Amino acid sequence: MKEAMKQANKALEKDEVPIGAVIVKDGKIISRGCNCREKSQNALKHAEVIAIDKACKKLKSWRLDGCQIYVTLEPCPMCAGAIANARIEKLTYGCKETSSNENLCEKILQSNRLNHHTKVIFDQTYQKEISQILSTFFQEKRKKN
Amino acid sequence: MKEAMKQANKALEKDEVPIGAVIVKDGKIISRGCNCREKSQNALKHAEVIAIDKACKKLKSWRLDGCQIYVTLEPCPMCAGAIANARIEKLTYGCKETSSNENLCEKILQSNRLNHHTKVIFDQTYQKEISQILSTFFQEKRKKN
Repeated sequence: MKEAMKQANKALEKDEVPIGAVIVKDGKIISRGCNCREKSQNALKHAEVIAIDKACKKLKSWRLDGCQIYVTLEPCPMCAGAIANARIEKLTYGCKETSSNENLCEKILQSNRLNHHTKVIFDQTYQKEISQILSTFFQEKRKKN
Repeated sequence: MKEAMKQANKALEKDEVPIGAVIVKDGKIISRGCNCREKSQNALKHAEVIAIDKACKKLKSWRLDGCQIYVTLEPCPMCAGAIANARIEKLTYGCKETSSNENLCEKILQSNRLNHHTKVIFDQTYQKEISQILSTFFQEKRKKN
């Protein structure tokens, strides 16, 4: 999670919503991603999607069997769907997404649409720190506007 | 929808699950996508994601305001999430996804997570034809295996 937080801070430096992700296989980080939607002007460029794209290229496979993804914030539906589609074994996120109470992330990852369920873990260890980075970012944004 | 079906047939020719998508703005097609998950060995390469990626690049914006997407099959959660994230105005799909009855696509697109709702239309005009292309593909696959 510390490594995912480094990615979130990298996004912050580029004035992007500070969210980061890393993918781990056999105890090693195989890919990293930091959100860059604004800079790229591309709706797909969330941290998780970038990390999944890199991991598929690295493993030369769309199946990320045995991989774990660590994300600073609970994934949006697109990213949760991408995690399921890539057959990622386990998702660990460090902060709850509070803008909606529909629990879509969990619903998507526990869906019976695929013969695959991704284990979902909410690791609260760094929640305060992650939440602080996010709220500072949005406060600064509001001040600027 | 005819143009999306052409894309599905293009996927079929490449031995991919035959799904196609096109994005329209001001009555003109601005991007196309056909599923190429196997050839690319990339879990993200669904028809809709490819079309959204191209449209963002073309319009130089992550916001696909005023755009409509036409897809042959009801989108998976990843693609439904991508459609919502790109703020696409309207989704029209030509065939129901029957592998799950959780209605996740609609739930994602009607979610109150974003200040944006994508209108969803199930256009049954070519459903038989689209469903036929898909079932023939899977029958052939089973025969080969």
